[in-house]
Amino acid sequence: MRYHKIPDETIRRLPVYLRQLLLLCQRGCTNISSDSFSNLVHIAGSQIRKDFSYFGDFGVRGRGYDIKRLIKEIKKILKLESFRDVALIGAGRLGSAILGYPGFKRYGFKISCALDTDKRKIGKKFGALTVKNASEVGILKKKKIKLAIIATPSDVAQGVTNKLVKAGVKGILNFAPCTLTAPKKVKIINIDIAMDLATLPYYLPSA
Amino acid sequence: MRYHKIPDETIRRLPVYLRQLLLLCQRGCTNISSDSFSNLVHIAGSQIRKDFSYFGDFGVRGRGYDIKRLIKEIKKILKLESFRDVALIGAGRLGSAILGYPGFKRYGFKISCALDTDKRKIGKKFGALTVKNASEVGILKKKKIKLAIIATPSDVAQGVTNKLVKAGVKGILNFAPCTLTAPKKVKIINIDIAMDLATLPYYLPSA
Repeated sequence: MRYHKIPDETIRRLPVYLRQLLLLCQRGCTNISSDSFSNLVHIAGSQIRKDFSYFGDFGVRGRGYDIKRLIKEIKKILKLESFRDVALIGAGRLGSAILGYPGFKRYGFKISCALDTDKRKIGKKFGALTVKNASEVGILKKKKIKLAIIATPSDVAQGVTNKLVKAGVKGILNFAPCTLTAPKKVKIINIDIAMDLATLPYYLPSA
Repeated sequence: MRYHKIPDETIRRLPVYLRQLLLLCQRGCTNISSDSFSNLVHIAGSQIRKDFSYFGDFGVRGRGYDIKRLIKEIKKILKLESFRDVALIGAGRLGSAILGYPGFKRYGFKISCALDTDKRKIGKKFGALTVKNASEVGILKKKKIKLAIIATPSDVAQGVTNKLVKAGVKGILNFAPCTLTAPKKVKIINIDIAMDLATLPYYLPSA
């Protein structure tokens, strides 16, 4: 099942639910009322019910959500059931921070390849991982790595994208503050730190 | 005017439009057709029109959007017309990457205060900025800094949030992979790198 009609906004919220459910599970919780869950994730209960309605009904009246079942189902929908290799392009300050980021494991991601063009970075070790020359991008095809994170400067990000697409990458998480172009079958998610910050002043009380 | 009814999703897209418009303006463009604009930002024209409809009508039939006017209006709505000081809490790897991030200026942000509890980081210089002891969080109140970025480990993020709220912060961009609780008047935007990555496999073609 591909759950074809699920809107992007729902797909974007599912990991938020998943993260909270994993945390609850870790603490030994088995069920949670929809109200408590809504409070924990800061998303309206009606929105959560609507999101869940796209792939079945998970709440049981009076008992709330079955946490383990929900985790399993969300992982299935997001295709997070098995470990996935991810390539990182750009091992500068941001890239290093990403390599040291502890949160990937939770969702089954493993950064198993890091590339850079800078000679000072090539050969650098991060745990068991050694930064390789970006010219070796072909190893992504060999290793069947379908996901990549771009943490390069903006001016080279499009060139990197083209090479990643050629190497068979189907999903890109882009940190370079620019809009990338790729074939439709390649999904790009942009994280622009400044852009997220730019939504905050709107919510400030008027001075 | 507070544009009260604009949905969060629209507010989240406005900086995407703004970024593209600033880029076009920089290149000397004065007008752009709604179709071309839609292609550039990868958002459906109907969605863009709907977003813009919340605060007036910016397209002129046959001439497209007036870029300068649109930039001015979006900046006004997002309250990005003047420079804003931002505090950074946590000057580790991620914090350092944030301090070196070039994209903040574009939206009028200036990280004018960096705090950490780690003695090895206190006193460290990033350009003109020196990392201060987190115990000096009171200077945020003195300097009237209303926005903060949290780049600390998860286990201390809630404590940091409480201190920031006490110091008068009204908007927080949170990089710690956890859900923070704050009074309703404080807006928190969460960036969880792994969580964004977690939405990508859904879009992968079935193996």
